[in-house]
Amino acid sequence: MPNRKRAPARVRLLDAAEDMLREVGMAGTGIKDVVARSGAPIGSLYHYFPDGKTQLVCEALQIQADKSGELLKRFFDPTTSLATALRSLFNTAADGFERAGANKGCAIGAVTLDLMPGDTAVRSICRSTFDQWVEIIAPRVPCSDQRSRRSFAVTIVAALEGAFVLARAAHSGDPFRQVGKALAAMVSSAPRSAPRALE
Amino acid sequence: MPNRKRAPARVRLLDAAEDMLREVGMAGTGIKDVVARSGAPIGSLYHYFPDGKTQLVCEALQIQADKSGELLKRFFDPTTSLATALRSLFNTAADGFERAGANKGCAIGAVTLDLMPGDTAVRSICRSTFDQWVEIIAPRVPCSDQRSRRSFAVTIVAALEGAFVLARAAHSGDPFRQVGKALAAMVSSAPRSAPRALE
Repeated sequence: MPNRKRAPARVRLLDAAEDMLREVGMAGTGIKDVVARSGAPIGSLYHYFPDGKTQLVCEALQIQADKSGELLKRFFDPTTSLATALRSLFNTAADGFERAGANKGCAIGAVTLDLMPGDTAVRSICRSTFDQWVEIIAPRVPCSDQRSRRSFAVTIVAALEGAFVLARAAHSGDPFRQVGKALAAMVSSAPRSAPRALE
Repeated sequence: MPNRKRAPARVRLLDAAEDMLREVGMAGTGIKDVVARSGAPIGSLYHYFPDGKTQLVCEALQIQADKSGELLKRFFDPTTSLATALRSLFNTAADGFERAGANKGCAIGAVTLDLMPGDTAVRSICRSTFDQWVEIIAPRVPCSDQRSRRSFAVTIVAALEGAFVLARAAHSGDPFRQVGKALAAMVSSAPRSAPRALE
């Protein structure tokens, strides 16, 4: 983020929080580390985020949720076949993962795996983000009934989140490419029988 | 774990570490919290794990890796169809997830999303565990070439890890059930065309 030093303190804090959430999840993201990484003055944290870490995490996640939703809508455009959309999405994710150093996951997924029972505000953002992704993908699934379209869309979202896990372990974007290829092959090889079998 | 209090301190420390890794990953697992949760004397930690947290995490993960490999071998038995194996695996995971309070992920996946560049020993266990799972599943995939069998197996492993993420967000085992159903439908609906398309 070359412009981070010139950005307002609020934006720098949110950018630094996002980076850390991607790298070590919510449990590993300490307020002091976020401030140090952002280069913002220490006093600015509670000025902009009076509710502290929870507010910072919620706002950083909501920005990611909005961005990712817009991005998914572009991939799963009604004029693009599902197989093409899947290949593009997973190949793009692979390239982005490697460009970012192959050590940053999905902030929403990483935070989700740290959720404690009291994290209701954060959980609500994670849950509604995944639901939103499913809602975007489901109409593109060539199944005749809504439940099957949802199951298939949930599987695509799960495979995407899981690909981040495998890619982090392998320190390579290849798991994204393998998953995108297999999912695309599955949907393009069985366009007629899949809907029936999925009902 | 009803027998924890009667188990030797070493086992109690490993059990407590596993619990915490499932709940909050590696970054959120503090040595003091593990000792407190285990009920073991504080001195026992460095007695049994002289290399501290890294050793404790590695040993706890290796136990999980061994157990999960054995479990997967039972699900993906050569006498069982892949569709049946997938439904059984994901339904069993859903039930186990809910029985455990719907707030525990996969220890290997949760730790993977916290990996820092210096965590070489831990990364090696995570990576080899996922590779082992892929090796167990790939021979059961009805594709004619090895690369496609691997891509499909990587997709199943990714979908399993991702289902833990979605289930944590939803506080329900349903994402596992939906993913298992969709994957089983995909493999059983296209037993002939899938192999060709996946090549």
